[in-house]
Amino acid sequence: MIIVLKPGTSDRDIEQLVKRIKKYGLQPYVSRGKERTVIPVIGDERVLENVPLTSLPYVEKVMAVLAPFKLVSREAHPKNTIVKAGRLEVGGKKIALIAGPCSVENREMIISIARQVKKAGATAIRGGAFKPRTSPYAFQGLGEEGLKYLAEARKETGLAVITEVIDTRDVELVCRYADVLQVGARNMQNFELLKEVGSSGHPVLFKRGQSATLKEYLQAAEYIVSRGNDQVMLCERGIRAGVEDYTRNTFDVVSIPVLKELTHLPVLADPSHATGKWQLIEPASLAAIAAGADGILIEVHPRPVEALSDGEQSILPNKYAAMVKKFRKVARAVGRTI
Amino acid sequence: MIIVLKPGTSDRDIEQLVKRIKKYGLQPYVSRGKERTVIPVIGDERVLENVPLTSLPYVEKVMAVLAPFKLVSREAHPKNTIVKAGRLEVGGKKIALIAGPCSVENREMIISIARQVKKAGATAIRGGAFKPRTSPYAFQGLGEEGLKYLAEARKETGLAVITEVIDTRDVELVCRYADVLQVGARNMQNFELLKEVGSSGHPVLFKRGQSATLKEYLQAAEYIVSRGNDQVMLCERGIRAGVEDYTRNTFDVVSIPVLKELTHLPVLADPSHATGKWQLIEPASLAAIAAGADGILIEVHPRPVEALSDGEQSILPNKYAAMVKKFRKVARAVGRTI
Amino acid sequence: MIIVLKPGTSDRDIEQLVKRIKKYGLQPYVSRGKERTVIPVIGDERVLENVPLTSLPYVEKVMAVLAPFKLVSREAHPKNTIVKAGRLEVGGKKIALIAGPCSVENREMIISIARQVKKAGATAIRGGAFKPRTSPYAFQGLGEEGLKYLAEARKETGLAVITEVIDTRDVELVCRYADVLQVGARNMQNFELLKEVGSSGHPVLFKRGQSATLKEYLQAAEYIVSRGNDQVMLCERGIRAGVEDYTRNTFDVVSIPVLKELTHLPVLADPSHATGKWQLIEPASLAAIAAGADGILIEVHPRPVEALSDGEQSILPNKYAAMVKKFRKVARAVGRTI
Amino acid sequence: MIIVLKPGTSDRDIEQLVKRIKKYGLQPYVSRGKERTVIPVIGDERVLENVPLTSLPYVEKVMAVLAPFKLVSREAHPKNTIVKAGRLEVGGKKIALIAGPCSVENREMIISIARQVKKAGATAIRGGAFKPRTSPYAFQGLGEEGLKYLAEARKETGLAVITEVIDTRDVELVCRYADVLQVGARNMQNFELLKEVGSSGHPVLFKRGQSATLKEYLQAAEYIVSRGNDQVMLCERGIRAGVEDYTRNTFDVVSIPVLKELTHLPVLADPSHATGKWQLIEPASLAAIAAGADGILIEVHPRPVEALSDGEQSILPNKYAAMVKKFRKVARAVGRTI
Repeated sequence: MIIVLKPGTSDRDIEQLVKRIKKYGLQPYVSRGKERTVIPVIGDERVLENVPLTSLPYVEKVMAVLAPFKLVSREAHPKNTIVKAGRLEVGGKKIALIAGPCSVENREMIISIARQVKKAGATAIRGGAFKPRTSPYAFQGLGEEGLKYLAEARKETGLAVITEVIDTRDVELVCRYADVLQVGARNMQNFELLKEVGSSGHPVLFKRGQSATLKEYLQAAEYIVSRGNDQVMLCERGIRAGVEDYTRNTFDVVSIPVLKELTHLPVLADPSHATGKWQLIEPASLAAIAAGADGILIEVHPRPVEALSDGEQSILPNKYAAMVKKFRKVARAVGRTI
Repeated sequence: MIIVLKPGTSDRDIEQLVKRIKKYGLQPYVSRGKERTVIPVIGDERVLENVPLTSLPYVEKVMAVLAPFKLVSREAHPKNTIVKAGRLEVGGKKIALIAGPCSVENREMIISIARQVKKAGATAIRGGAFKPRTSPYAFQGLGEEGLKYLAEARKETGLAVITEVIDTRDVELVCRYADVLQVGARNMQNFELLKEVGSSGHPVLFKRGQSATLKEYLQAAEYIVSRGNDQVMLCERGIRAGVEDYTRNTFDVVSIPVLKELTHLPVLADPSHATGKWQLIEPASLAAIAAGADGILIEVHPRPVEALSDGEQSILPNKYAAMVKKFRKVARAVGRTI
Repeated sequence: MIIVLKPGTSDRDIEQLVKRIKKYGLQPYVSRGKERTVIPVIGDERVLENVPLTSLPYVEKVMAVLAPFKLVSREAHPKNTIVKAGRLEVGGKKIALIAGPCSVENREMIISIARQVKKAGATAIRGGAFKPRTSPYAFQGLGEEGLKYLAEARKETGLAVITEVIDTRDVELVCRYADVLQVGARNMQNFELLKEVGSSGHPVLFKRGQSATLKEYLQAAEYIVSRGNDQVMLCERGIRAGVEDYTRNTFDVVSIPVLKELTHLPVLADPSHATGKWQLIEPASLAAIAAGADGILIEVHPRPVEALSDGEQSILPNKYAAMVKKFRKVARAVGRTI
Repeated sequence: MIIVLKPGTSDRDIEQLVKRIKKYGLQPYVSRGKERTVIPVIGDERVLENVPLTSLPYVEKVMAVLAPFKLVSREAHPKNTIVKAGRLEVGGKKIALIAGPCSVENREMIISIARQVKKAGATAIRGGAFKPRTSPYAFQGLGEEGLKYLAEARKETGLAVITEVIDTRDVELVCRYADVLQVGARNMQNFELLKEVGSSGHPVLFKRGQSATLKEYLQAAEYIVSRGNDQVMLCERGIRAGVEDYTRNTFDVVSIPVLKELTHLPVLADPSHATGKWQLIEPASLAAIAAGADGILIEVHPRPVEALSDGEQSILPNKYAAMVKKFRKVARAVGRTI
């Protein structure tokens, strides 16, 4: 941590500040410059996280040196973490394919999609039973009934089941049916939910919030891992950049290699939400694979125009299978497999 | 709703689309132009909310005509809603003052602050017992113990108590102690929590999310009101604009008059979070009052530098009292009282 | 400047870096921590502006301590600069009123508006003769003819004339007619234009770019002042925050007190462009005055619906006069006059 | 164009509006709904671009149906435009490689880089002689001397020369030496410069502004093309999304396929500016190629740490050559060549 003082800070104030910092077991080094005095502080600065030094009138700014997360950082754990859930394995050389409808709509539909995406190469099926919808008047999901259909789809196909949990009270229920708990973008900073899914020990697919910095994202992931659960997959799903006139969000493809450098957790991409348009899912997926993604999450629906949610960004099962062939070529070109 | 078709759409496709729309009880009017065919659809377009028309290959775009919220709109309810909770009354001519520390730290502290802010003119005390913190290693609040101290502060001073709830499982507990439930910015789209505070019937202080449009914000407020609870106060607390180099967030002061036009709910401002710096709270508050805010929420702490959270943006009780005097002058200048 | 090294940097690398920094006349202090080595560098770090230290493989990051601008900073010049141009005086106790149409459309129109806004209290007329329009097919201004009409309006009313310059080749011409050169938001980083208006010695109304940080804005202002011209007025005119669904831009009202603290230059507000809607100009202006603005710039047009540009955000002359009365009340409430 | 009226608009107002629209040669169709009256307007709505209908008090909003650009649109010109300048050819099956230092620093350096990047596969050299720098105290370029060195590099290697022009007064001079005029992100809406490079007839490398929507970008490109010059290459170089904590900008990779759909002009990617970090240039480039980019622009410098500008984002010539080999593999995987 570096503390920068305002010009004209008195020696008495500096002395008191130095004393205060030493009280926390840290070592300050006062460097007096012509325009500013700066104080690098040596030691684990995280103990100062709750101390608002800038409310001291003579402190101009405080600059952190260490990253504000620990367990998720690659420094703490240099090797890639491999997340496993049934057939699904994410974080190794093979890029994982996850597919399925935005919402589980009925039994037949989810089983049929599961069969088709499995054939195309997917190892997990995704589908929402509890849906966080922007409008209270939009379809909110089938609830436990939807979970049962997902479990049936797993029984039929062997695919791992991924589904979203949106309420701390549902974590136990969802764990009973799903292989992986999804935490959606809107709940990225729903810290109670993060603690609960962390404690569950279940693998987690943890999406980045729409306007989250990577630092905030990894701090949030730290909530899950700090509960003893390192089976966490990160997932870039588009951010709000303020320039979207043709897409739903802006796909931050470079966040993938940055995250791979900062953390040992695997990193997926969700081009369906990131673009919001089925025509753009293919180029966005290819870009993600080229940039190093460990898995690709895509919305697939047999009749997009009748989908109860997110139809604009769904593609047909046969188009999905055709796309996967192209994914394979690019994966091979960057030394990966699918 | 207006549907714009791609150039070259066949008559057969248009016919089918028209039939499909009529099935929903709506009336489409096909207008064929030289470059595009557009179809205005008359009727309550909200029934089409779940129908992803743009996944039809010949649909270029769909433009909504009606606002995607109803119960919270001023059209549905032209008169201002007044929210009442004990001494606190928000939405009339008098601007409400709400103050208190970010977190409840101990009994003495909260009672002492309550006394001082009451003397300065506040009618409600705020303080967090359950804290949503960016880092899992930061102070997470005193929990029920904090709620008890808040209730004691009310007993001592008569101030209404406002405190945040961050988990659906805590709503009942918090209702037992608080007069107003706060839903924070990070939970703006935690829809399960919104449903629960809506059903509680308790007044709600509902903060805008950091990157939420006003449309999204009002759709989220609709979740609360659609559960039969119209005692909702909105609150602008700063957005992330991407240009913040000297402040924590960007204070969107114009959202106040815009919201006052769109909805009948009262609108507060939280200059402490919006700016993140105690020196900027005064000018931001004055701006909010001049722009029509119904209340001002400020973090007050007896010793900001020792605060367990958000000390940088806290001010001392005596500074608060001095600021309120300036608030009164501007309030009077725009025809309000404090 | 603080240099943070990656974990495991060798002593040899540190030594070489220290030598390199000393070559620039600066004094590095190496502080070795457990997790990181940090090197505060004492001296005028601006000499390192062209040295990309982070391209050294062992440098993790470099943090600036000093602000990257000098002549415009309040540290360099603690007293407010007063900008004077004819009747216009900005930066003192009196808040300046500047008004006029977006574009000069004809002689009668500009003279008639000048008379009306003068009566309402304005000391300067604004109007564009050279217009930077988003579309090449939109009205581009009358050019020199428009400048002549503006000069006539000054002759008739005594108001100072403010008009935009958008091309280095026009600076001399515009100086011949105008009292103040306006540099618009789109040209905030058109550095050649900034150098030219700086060298002209003419007073400048310098608008903030739509996505500029305050640091970038002040660095750009430094271009003008470094040419020996300190007659520069800053102007907040709305930023793009990515959440605009009801306004054209987001009005960053808190930038006003922040700029007043960082720089000695006067700070205006332009609520017409910031909101893009005539109904919001009044509350935004009142907020700006309450927050400490030194002047208010408003688009006034006799028949907004027929305006050749920006009619949506123009107000009628009589509405303007009514608004100014309210401005006066708020100005008085914060210890200013109009 | 669709005009939406406020509830309760009188028949007389509707009648007048209809008359006004017809005066412009357009055909309005009034559709009266229960909650709103909407008026689709058939004909070339661009004639209404200067008519601010929303300043009519009874107009709620106006929604455009047609894209606000014409000559650059793929509708107007379905086939890809191929831009040619000497050896450089962009827009066909072969992906073009453009490389070189941010600034031309001296004769030897630019010739040596030209030789090396040519060997690696580049067909054009880039380098700045006139530099738009954020700070007035940063290196501003060698001017004409730099242009001469670039011309020598072309003579030695046969590579096409691309260099930035930042002032209308320099266009003629730069045309004398360069094969392609670059217009940088900061000048995207410097419309006078766009007109001038348009009129020059010289090929143009036209970068997207840091916070520009694609609509604004294409409208700006229309300025160039409407002067009779269709030799325009677009270039995505990173946007400001507000979440950048580890990169300089956010690379909007999906803008590449979107632009390819909207316009016939070729689309390049500039991963050096988009990421600001040399370590991220490779994954960002691979992503761009996978997403359909027609060319890749990379900063190459023999000694990045001594570069006079943008060293953090420069890579060494031998690293560049190694990267190009990987580019080739991904290009082949998506059916392109390099």
